[in-house]
Amino acid sequence: MQTEEASFVSGRTRIFGIVGDPIEQVRSPEMFSAEFVRRGLEALMIPLHVLPADFTSCMAQLKRVRNLDGLVFTIPYKQAALGLADTLGPQARTVGAINALARQPDGKWTGDIFDGLGCVAAFRSRGYSFLDQRLTLIGAGGAGSAIGVAVAHENPRSIRLFDPDQARAADLAAKIRSVNSAIDVTVGEPLTTDIDILLNASPVGMLSDPRMPVDISAISSGVIVFDAIVKPEPTKLLALARRRRCRTVFGREMMHGQISKMADFFSGRGS
Amino acid sequence: MQTEEASFVSGRTRIFGIVGDPIEQVRSPEMFSAEFVRRGLEALMIPLHVLPADFTSCMAQLKRVRNLDGLVFTIPYKQAALGLADTLGPQARTVGAINALARQPDGKWTGDIFDGLGCVAAFRSRGYSFLDQRLTLIGAGGAGSAIGVAVAHENPRSIRLFDPDQARAADLAAKIRSVNSAIDVTVGEPLTTDIDILLNASPVGMLSDPRMPVDISAISSGVIVFDAIVKPEPTKLLALARRRRCRTVFGREMMHGQISKMADFFSGRGS
Repeated sequence: MQTEEASFVSGRTRIFGIVGDPIEQVRSPEMFSAEFVRRGLEALMIPLHVLPADFTSCMAQLKRVRNLDGLVFTIPYKQAALGLADTLGPQARTVGAINALARQPDGKWTGDIFDGLGCVAAFRSRGYSFLDQRLTLIGAGGAGSAIGVAVAHENPRSIRLFDPDQARAADLAAKIRSVNSAIDVTVGEPLTTDIDILLNASPVGMLSDPRMPVDISAISSGVIVFDAIVKPEPTKLLALARRRRCRTVFGREMMHGQISKMADFFSGRGS
Repeated sequence: MQTEEASFVSGRTRIFGIVGDPIEQVRSPEMFSAEFVRRGLEALMIPLHVLPADFTSCMAQLKRVRNLDGLVFTIPYKQAALGLADTLGPQARTVGAINALARQPDGKWTGDIFDGLGCVAAFRSRGYSFLDQRLTLIGAGGAGSAIGVAVAHENPRSIRLFDPDQARAADLAAKIRSVNSAIDVTVGEPLTTDIDILLNASPVGMLSDPRMPVDISAISSGVIVFDAIVKPEPTKLLALARRRRCRTVFGREMMHGQISKMADFFSGRGS
């Protein structure tokens, strides 16, 4: 009789899923599953590739799987996922999007978004401050909104917002002003001159997408460049920033910055 | 930056699930996941606890998850799962139940059942033959039917069938006769005297169920006792059989007997 059996999964395993389209680029499965192991939990996170046409009906049924305790949402579902939550955590209430949904002991589902906290934590662990800095933020979707709102609490001097959907950018500008009215917030083409920090939260450049979210071929070496994209690693944007001798912050660092907070959230220890 | 990441799952992982109610007792997640690793596949099997009221709607949506390539069904879904298959393999056509559903390259789903082949393989690897033996089979559900049909090909002398649902037992008797008309098939209370092999394929005795599927307190030491249940291990039935000095075959051995065939099935290499 064979005895070789995998030690990382059993009938008692609690399931968490990350939902997106595409899905191959996500890092959450390996990062959360390792975090669950570190915490001594019988749990793992799997990728779930769900097409937009199936999202609503599929999520309604996934929530009925009794040993599925939480979901993470990535592109393009951070805003659509808001409707799956019975209650919202503090970041989600301001941002209007979620990237995590956790089953509560009473069977209800709570949603919150941690991308912004993860981005701020990543900068902090590098020793880079947003205080009095001039920022350009590209992308005003779920991740971009969360980053804009979280960064607003760090008292930057100005934030220039760009999104191809101008209404979406204007909406994020209003949210940022409601959080911190001292910041000079503008909407328009992405500036790369006279700035201190460039943040990409758009999906441009993900996987085999050959595009750059913005031309940085002449960017100053004094600018810190961040890209929320985790694959490829580095993205073209970050590779070029390094060649320009800029300091860089990687999407993987934002992920690491939020894993612990999200694992707390998933185990019902606050959001 | 932390670098600890789980190596057994990523965004590219193909997902397989075992669906049942209850689910904690299943061994498929650890056994299939190890088999996928041995084959060099980026795939794993997770438990999915689905309640009967949710089964039909939940399965319809799970099949739409693009990186979910197959499902295994356990109690109580082996017969209900038949309706999920677009086409059936050879065992399923005779048995009228499936325990495995695999996505085909054209997007269709093929179902088949491997419990019977697994049971026969487990006996074979122990060196125990069904030829000319007198059998009692308890349970005529999905697993019991698969075992009855597979064992019928091995030319036993007689099969005594018991199921609390007599119509279900009679239905299985007809299937067995259609496979092998030379076998003396009867339906009624489970015999434990004047038999050579006792097969339990009912859920009685699973997990914390304190019952025994049949009283074997006076069974002869010459009888080989098999239990399809994988948890607890040993079941009360098998523990008592050992105390009676009977030879035993475990549910885990049936699982091992079918893992390789099912992994072939899941990778599109025949059923």
